[in-house]
Amino acid sequence: MSVTAAKGFTAAGVAAGIKENGNPDLALVVNTGPRRAAAGVFTSNRVKAAPVLWSEQVLKSGELTAVVLNSGGANACTGPKGFQDTHATAEKAAEVLGIGAGEVAVCSTGLIGVLLPMDKLLPGVERAAGQLSEHGGEKAAIAIKTTDTVHKTSVVSKDGWTVGGMAKGAGMLAPGLATMLVVLTTDADLDGATLDKALRAATRVTFDRVDSDGCMSTNDTVLLLASGASGVTPEYDAFAEAVRAVCDDLGQQLVRDAEGASKDIKVEVVNAATEDDAVEVGRSIARNNLLKCAIHGEDPNWGRVLSAIGTTKAAFEPDRLNVAINGVWVCKNGGVGEDREKVDMRYREVHIVADLAAGTETATIWTNDLTADYVHENSAYSS
Amino acid sequence: MSVTAAKGFTAAGVAAGIKENGNPDLALVVNTGPRRAAAGVFTSNRVKAAPVLWSEQVLKSGELTAVVLNSGGANACTGPKGFQDTHATAEKAAEVLGIGAGEVAVCSTGLIGVLLPMDKLLPGVERAAGQLSEHGGEKAAIAIKTTDTVHKTSVVSKDGWTVGGMAKGAGMLAPGLATMLVVLTTDADLDGATLDKALRAATRVTFDRVDSDGCMSTNDTVLLLASGASGVTPEYDAFAEAVRAVCDDLGQQLVRDAEGASKDIKVEVVNAATEDDAVEVGRSIARNNLLKCAIHGEDPNWGRVLSAIGTTKAAFEPDRLNVAINGVWVCKNGGVGEDREKVDMRYREVHIVADLAAGTETATIWTNDLTADYVHENSAYSS
Repeated sequence: MSVTAAKGFTAAGVAAGIKENGNPDLALVVNTGPRRAAAGVFTSNRVKAAPVLWSEQVLKSGELTAVVLNSGGANACTGPKGFQDTHATAEKAAEVLGIGAGEVAVCSTGLIGVLLPMDKLLPGVERAAGQLSEHGGEKAAIAIKTTDTVHKTSVVSKDGWTVGGMAKGAGMLAPGLATMLVVLTTDADLDGATLDKALRAATRVTFDRVDSDGCMSTNDTVLLLASGASGVTPEYDAFAEAVRAVCDDLGQQLVRDAEGASKDIKVEVVNAATEDDAVEVGRSIARNNLLKCAIHGEDPNWGRVLSAIGTTKAAFEPDRLNVAINGVWVCKNGGVGEDREKVDMRYREVHIVADLAAGTETATIWTNDLTADYVHENSAYSS
Repeated sequence: MSVTAAKGFTAAGVAAGIKENGNPDLALVVNTGPRRAAAGVFTSNRVKAAPVLWSEQVLKSGELTAVVLNSGGANACTGPKGFQDTHATAEKAAEVLGIGAGEVAVCSTGLIGVLLPMDKLLPGVERAAGQLSEHGGEKAAIAIKTTDTVHKTSVVSKDGWTVGGMAKGAGMLAPGLATMLVVLTTDADLDGATLDKALRAATRVTFDRVDSDGCMSTNDTVLLLASGASGVTPEYDAFAEAVRAVCDDLGQQLVRDAEGASKDIKVEVVNAATEDDAVEVGRSIARNNLLKCAIHGEDPNWGRVLSAIGTTKAAFEPDRLNVAINGVWVCKNGGVGEDREKVDMRYREVHIVADLAAGTETATIWTNDLTADYVHENSAYSS
């Protein structure tokens, strides 16, 4: 269902020849209206790929008619020529769709530092435009895969309106690749400002809290397009909740497909003085390589959790910290708690609770274990 | 030579039975004077082990007569009982040496969250005191090893005075272990304040810039003791340079012995606006798991270097960044530079230069690659 679950959208996915293996690598999503409201959230990396710089600009209008996405090349760190290529891609889509280039967002994913094969990409845009369909959502989702083992889609429908979407990304773990691209669509009748508010609220507590390996991409893009085709203007809270639910579902799918991972780790920080404290502590735990190795070895090593908490600026007293792993409070008051032998770590999901005993705020960060497979997949053994 | 290279020091190393495998695990270093000046630098982790809390206190006097060090247990996250154990260790050393407990620093390294076997440790202190010798420096260096494959010592001698030392630590990479302990000794005739100044200046540009896996220990301790036995008071600059040289040598030895590592990576940041910028960028590059995997695979993946730079707050323009790997400028002006095929990465040492083109400051951070062996050694496969 993907990006065509909501009314007022068509999509296509084709093999343009950008990927040498002949797999699908170019997707097109078109808003057929009546509305063209849109919002976007982009990587906070200061080294931004050309398509990110372009799409940030065109989105300032609060409107979009089409999105061109390619896998097989990130078009990042490619200088002025890279930006010209993104511009040419938007121009081509505008030409074949009979719109302006300023209505077209561009997303790219793949290797950093390599120019795109424009002689293949531009004909691909034309071919995709010829295959646009109200049932094209799944093909579009497949065409944006890089090292993803599965394509990722999600849909929530409520009283006469729908939010759907597609995502690509294997955690943040792709080998040499820029990572997360997400396009969400809705047929709700809402303006760009409302979309922007709902999208920022949703990504803040979903995609922003997925942290597989702490490596921030140059290309991350999350777009939300509204066609208004349902004729329904939902209450803001209901709409925001639907956007959050779709983002949460897609974010979970990214974690579950993280390269080389054998465990999905839910790091829940509770009783923090502020939400920022909870996020900082959760991220510090989620990025601790020693802990991630221990979890891989099914070792409930709470000392590494405390060591990670200790590197943060969050409010806490070391001798009041408590840590539970899979329901067993292995650390109480900063010291030895329940018997660690009680912790059952055989399953893929691991749940760590860090109790800061400093307030009432909470946050959850999702990450993965660190495995030899991660190293292998990201070492690009050149032989 | 180690901690007994300088005149006015004795040392010993014994197997107290703290380690189950019977290896040496307890060291004692004693300053026989005439001076007892001392300084120390400790982990900035807010979760500090009991021996760190104790040693920080006793060092406030600017004097120390003895240091007891044990491997086989970090005495971290062990609550009030852990602190009592550290206190009892200092009391025992004071008793057998005929001094006060407030003249004794304590250092521990090993598993976090486990109480020390005091019934073995205290007799061990007594036995070590009986074996103190002016030639005991090497035995002491051996007794503080955990997963270190070699013991680490260094000595610099100048005009009638000497700075020597020992270190333990396998990068920051030890499995479940707290990591770096260093004891430096000198027979220079200097007061505690001068030692403190020289030690802080040295650690800031040596141990503080070794970052194998970004995981900060609960037990890191670097001590510098001066006996004054040479009768020489060197010029400050000459002394500070000798301390820096010994710290640099020991720091390099830590990097070369990092667990599971196959590459030693020198990250040199040049043309930064400030030294802080250079350190922040160097650390960000050194902690990027994707880059560390790429280096392991001998892949000169400069896109991951740029991506890491982009996550910092340092002053730079993305399109002015340059990156060299092993002397080849693979990235120029934020884009593709020289042919990456020219980069020879067959050797253990890898040299990355990141040119921020934003000023004249520089800093170097040392790290290692991320390998499957690192994962294996830190996963504690419990079977």
